[in-house]
Amino acid sequence: MNAYEIILKKRDKKELARPEIEYMIRSYTQGEIPDYQMASFLMAVFLNGMTFRETTDLTLIMRDSGIVVDLSDILGVKVDKHSTGGVGDKVSLMLAPLAASIGVVVPMISGRGLGHTGGTLDKLESIPGFDIALSLDQYRQTLKSIGVCMIGQTAEIAPADKKTYALRDVTGTVESIPLISASIMSKKLAEGIDALVLDVKVGNGAFMKDIERARDLARHLIAIGEGAGKSVTAVLTNMNQPLGNAIGNWLEMKEAIEVLQGRGPEDIIELTAVLTSYMIMHAKPGLTYEEAYDQCLHNLRNGKAFDKFIQLVKAHKGNLDVVNRPSEYPKARYQENIHAAQDGYINAVDSFELGMTGILIGAGRQKKEDEIDYSAGIMIYKKVPAKVQKGELLATLHTNRKAAVDAAKEKISRAFSIGNRQPDAEPLVYSVMDKSGIVKGSY
Amino acid sequence: MNAYEIILKKRDKKELARPEIEYMIRSYTQGEIPDYQMASFLMAVFLNGMTFRETTDLTLIMRDSGIVVDLSDILGVKVDKHSTGGVGDKVSLMLAPLAASIGVVVPMISGRGLGHTGGTLDKLESIPGFDIALSLDQYRQTLKSIGVCMIGQTAEIAPADKKTYALRDVTGTVESIPLISASIMSKKLAEGIDALVLDVKVGNGAFMKDIERARDLARHLIAIGEGAGKSVTAVLTNMNQPLGNAIGNWLEMKEAIEVLQGRGPEDIIELTAVLTSYMIMHAKPGLTYEEAYDQCLHNLRNGKAFDKFIQLVKAHKGNLDVVNRPSEYPKARYQENIHAAQDGYINAVDSFELGMTGILIGAGRQKKEDEIDYSAGIMIYKKVPAKVQKGELLATLHTNRKAAVDAAKEKISRAFSIGNRQPDAEPLVYSVMDKSGIVKGSY
Repeated sequence: MNAYEIILKKRDKKELARPEIEYMIRSYTQGEIPDYQMASFLMAVFLNGMTFRETTDLTLIMRDSGIVVDLSDILGVKVDKHSTGGVGDKVSLMLAPLAASIGVVVPMISGRGLGHTGGTLDKLESIPGFDIALSLDQYRQTLKSIGVCMIGQTAEIAPADKKTYALRDVTGTVESIPLISASIMSKKLAEGIDALVLDVKVGNGAFMKDIERARDLARHLIAIGEGAGKSVTAVLTNMNQPLGNAIGNWLEMKEAIEVLQGRGPEDIIELTAVLTSYMIMHAKPGLTYEEAYDQCLHNLRNGKAFDKFIQLVKAHKGNLDVVNRPSEYPKARYQENIHAAQDGYINAVDSFELGMTGILIGAGRQKKEDEIDYSAGIMIYKKVPAKVQKGELLATLHTNRKAAVDAAKEKISRAFSIGNRQPDAEPLVYSVMDKSGIVKGSY
Repeated sequence: MNAYEIILKKRDKKELARPEIEYMIRSYTQGEIPDYQMASFLMAVFLNGMTFRETTDLTLIMRDSGIVVDLSDILGVKVDKHSTGGVGDKVSLMLAPLAASIGVVVPMISGRGLGHTGGTLDKLESIPGFDIALSLDQYRQTLKSIGVCMIGQTAEIAPADKKTYALRDVTGTVESIPLISASIMSKKLAEGIDALVLDVKVGNGAFMKDIERARDLARHLIAIGEGAGKSVTAVLTNMNQPLGNAIGNWLEMKEAIEVLQGRGPEDIIELTAVLTSYMIMHAKPGLTYEEAYDQCLHNLRNGKAFDKFIQLVKAHKGNLDVVNRPSEYPKARYQENIHAAQDGYINAVDSFELGMTGILIGAGRQKKEDEIDYSAGIMIYKKVPAKVQKGELLATLHTNRKAAVDAAKEKISRAFSIGNRQPDAEPLVYSVMDKSGIVKGSY
């Protein structure tokens, strides 16, 4: 067996046997196959696809390239949530402590922002001192004591995925359903969960632009997870405009704190409660969806979710002063308002464009090495289908980069489409899927 | 402009603009784009193709990555021949001196054997002392004085192709019509020719297994050459069994010397005369095909082609003793006969299998660094559609590798298919094409 022959086989649209995928992934991870052969292989996979069987094998081989954490000695049902990535998507920040406050054990391993989407780790690190690099031992201890822990992918978790993803990122081979599925699930299946809730985003700010492809991705993810003995629910959700009002790491953290204190924007409260409810139903099969949802709203209002959040920040050595007094957090030097250029209704807010603006103003990264400015971001005050008057405030830009101000204002302004007719409001949740197919909603 | 965006564009089946192809090839040649990005790009080109316009641009960009030799100060029409590669294809060894003996100037830059096919340079080097690494200045001088010169691709000729080809060779991206076309023509357009005759091989021993793909390749090659102001003729020829009787570097050279002395196998004499005739017609437009063909046979018989060959070997510092007394050349230690296992007719001789056996016994290379054993090879005594009797001699294996003898005999034996019915003889030449399409033959 050699890499060259395996490349030819995939190039010629033949199905690879498990030992062939195993040879390719193992040898590459061990440095025995050069980057250029892996790159050519990945492009062949991107363009010719993988069967469902190949994708499952790839996932399990990548999972087994590192440690598979065993949390069986921790009481309770372990449930995580994964989002395919959006703009303003700070749901994990609220969902993890909220679910834990209701008795779900939440072992969460998250990623950083890349491209136009933000990442949970960066948002957590906007709290000074917050340590996302706990060892697997500390991870286990934290889960045992407070029922929730939020860390980054350690070197021991799916190293084959880590190395392969870095190469995909620079060779144009990211947006492939088999490769995305294997990457997501190899990590999730290694972190010690019993069940998983997936937030599969669809729309102009998501990697999946149309519902068909999103549903295909959801099907892959569910089947891989169920095949590995985990219960999986996928929720297909709207990413045609930013979630909540805040985009940017600290601004999103501040908004999350508001929600955890029983305030905050409605859409983000709803999405958090929906996703947390499915986690609760995995952990407590006796509860109905409505009961779970009520309990979520209840714990956001009565302070229990916020208390759990405080425990979480403490366990990760984060500075509690900024959490308790968010208004004292250092502000970006330049704050510039963007106003409506005409009367009308907000017909669209281009979240991809706003996400890209985030990179320009320091809130995101162009390259992996780039440093993030936690205070940079955009606050959105009008969303679809709101009525606006000429001159009314649409958004505020926060940045420390003077040179970026003019271009950023221009881009933010262009992200808002104002029309004469009020559009229909789009649903926030399209549908819910599990191993039996679509179980709620009709999209 | 950056490599990543260009990869995405080709991946997404969009046509690349000339500056994009230029950026990719130039930056890669200068070491500014890493191998892994080029590998992913090449696989995208392999699977998504290139338009005719893209292929022509790629060719000219690769040609212009090095020196384009100007031979305009040398009198006469400069015509080269290129073969897409076969087994036992020693035509260049006879064709170059033959054409030169009739007044065609032949500036020939050839390649080495790779995979199952042989290469002209290796065959020339089987003559001790023969120097294929002349400088471009010596090349020009030799052409001026004797009208023919046979060298290898120098570092100055199409370096972009050299680097790209080495990467294609290990990333499964060789057999792509746009990439093959650009690779062949970038070198040919750099060597200073006025016209070109192409031998596009079709069959089990060729890179193109079927006539449709071969015709497509020929169309590409002709159009690129004509677009660059050269006259191009393509001859589609049969590669379903080895050409002549000899496979292996010195064995083929010895057979070539026989043909140049007016003896040798009929098929190889015919193919040499056909291809040389089209070269002559480019140089002397007044001649008919029949006149050109007659002149070829004439000069093979009257010793003029052989005299020119002696001049060529001298100019390249080759040892004339072995040319004049081929029987004194050192022989391989092991010579083993392969006999017919049954009565019948030769239905097929698998030239790919025989080419691969060549690698096993030391006549070809597995990797570029491998050394060649010039005396190793296979002599074939029976070809399609000959009648054979059980026990009759089919072939003789020549090798210095004792360990390879048994496996090689087995492979050679299997390469001959003997059946009860005599098959029809296949044509040696399928058709002839030029810029107006098929001009002779109907395949």
